[in-house]
Amino acid sequence: MTVVTRASELTAALAEYGRPRLLVPTMGALHDGHVALIRHAKELAGAEGTVVVSIFVNPIQFDRPGDLAAYPRPMEADLAACRAAGVAVVFAPEATAMYATDRSVTVSESRLSRNLCGAARPGHFDGVCTVVLKLFLLCGCDMAVFGEKDFQQLAVIRRMVRDLNVPVTIVAHPTVRETDGLAMSSRNVRLDTAQRADAPRLRHALLAALAAYQTGTRTTAELLATARQVIEASALARIDYLSLVDAESLEAVERIERPALLATAVFYGEVRLIDHVRLAP
Amino acid sequence: MTVVTRASELTAALAEYGRPRLLVPTMGALHDGHVALIRHAKELAGAEGTVVVSIFVNPIQFDRPGDLAAYPRPMEADLAACRAAGVAVVFAPEATAMYATDRSVTVSESRLSRNLCGAARPGHFDGVCTVVLKLFLLCGCDMAVFGEKDFQQLAVIRRMVRDLNVPVTIVAHPTVRETDGLAMSSRNVRLDTAQRADAPRLRHALLAALAAYQTGTRTTAELLATARQVIEASALARIDYLSLVDAESLEAVERIERPALLATAVFYGEVRLIDHVRLAP
Repeated sequence: MTVVTRASELTAALAEYGRPRLLVPTMGALHDGHVALIRHAKELAGAEGTVVVSIFVNPIQFDRPGDLAAYPRPMEADLAACRAAGVAVVFAPEATAMYATDRSVTVSESRLSRNLCGAARPGHFDGVCTVVLKLFLLCGCDMAVFGEKDFQQLAVIRRMVRDLNVPVTIVAHPTVRETDGLAMSSRNVRLDTAQRADAPRLRHALLAALAAYQTGTRTTAELLATARQVIEASALARIDYLSLVDAESLEAVERIERPALLATAVFYGEVRLIDHVRLAP
Repeated sequence: MTVVTRASELTAALAEYGRPRLLVPTMGALHDGHVALIRHAKELAGAEGTVVVSIFVNPIQFDRPGDLAAYPRPMEADLAACRAAGVAVVFAPEATAMYATDRSVTVSESRLSRNLCGAARPGHFDGVCTVVLKLFLLCGCDMAVFGEKDFQQLAVIRRMVRDLNVPVTIVAHPTVRETDGLAMSSRNVRLDTAQRADAPRLRHALLAALAAYQTGTRTTAELLATARQVIEASALARIDYLSLVDAESLEAVERIERPALLATAVFYGEVRLIDHVRLAP
């Protein structure tokens, strides 16, 4: 496995490897969810292709400095996980190599990023778009694999690829969960014991709404009430948002008539967890 | 010469041609300035390479609808000029093929585009960045040739390439002029006879300031006064801006201590012409 920290080294390293070239962009702190993305990328790469993992805690997508500082950075463990998963090249740049001090060009998304996580995190998705485009272009990848857990990020990146004609195929991988249903996230390690025990509640709340949907409930008000009741039963959980949105436009809907997503973000102390479920006619 | 209007056709057409691939992005209404860019691209392409010309009047870089509507679109003459200059592929998309009705992703530049032409044309350089990146990615070009006449556009595009890690080498070509010194522009045909006769005044004004610089004048106030006097001697010309800026940052300077640009935009009726001269220690 080749580990590089500079763009020029990346280009030289990649010249040694075959196509298709698949990128799995990460912020490190790799867990089994990331490993599942890497394994999927390996399958798509086939015998000739190459899997590249980027590890970069992107400062410009953090809206709260405390969250950036607290983000875990276990580089040795991450490299071991990449090695074990058969990654060919790891690109782990310093922030100073990614962003010039006088940088002035940004990629902005103005529709899909307005609500849900975007409403509470101004600038977050512009930071995501900018770094993802940079990584795509630095890597020259043919495909890139993203987790469905970050569904709004996935929608925004697909929109960027469409609107800017980026020659990269976006592959989505289903959310990977702990055995108790909690969606895997690098933030889960920051939960204390009581919070961690309570956190599968997000999944239970969404599944309760899914069950109501499957037995005929169609109005947003009823579906949200069902989910909210489950979350609000906990004194540890504080809802940031709980929304039913169109699966394409991510705009709020009154009633399910097309595929929709029921999505939530919940704070446990300072730790913000997200999850969603698809409700499709 | 292959002429295509769709992205999918472009990809198929380009697969037939060799590298390096050079793009000359234009808005059509080609004049000898464009032809000089194309000839330079041909030289850089060599025997194996390919020159692609895009012809697209980009709606999102026009801040005034009247200017967009008035922009000349002589497609047959443009294609003849491309053919005569040895262009391999012309990409001439419709606006609807370039921009989805629900498009929401834009490239923004926030420093170099603040003053000069950017101050008077809000959104102009974001529109330029967005379309140029799209054309680069659609074309998959190795190099692209731009005229130095649009020096702010050139600086903004170089900045975009740097900040987004766009794998395209930007080549600048010196301003091409009519025999009387007027910088070639697609807008020149919109000047009436008296305006056209007067318009070389921009060049004369800038050269007067250059002469003052060469004989030792260094302060912005004096250099601007010299140029302004020449322009204001005409009743037809109305100054939009006349500025002395740092050649790198495009920020206004008080005194020339590093390479600088003396730049002007002048209205003749509704027609806005630009020109500049480099003043370098």
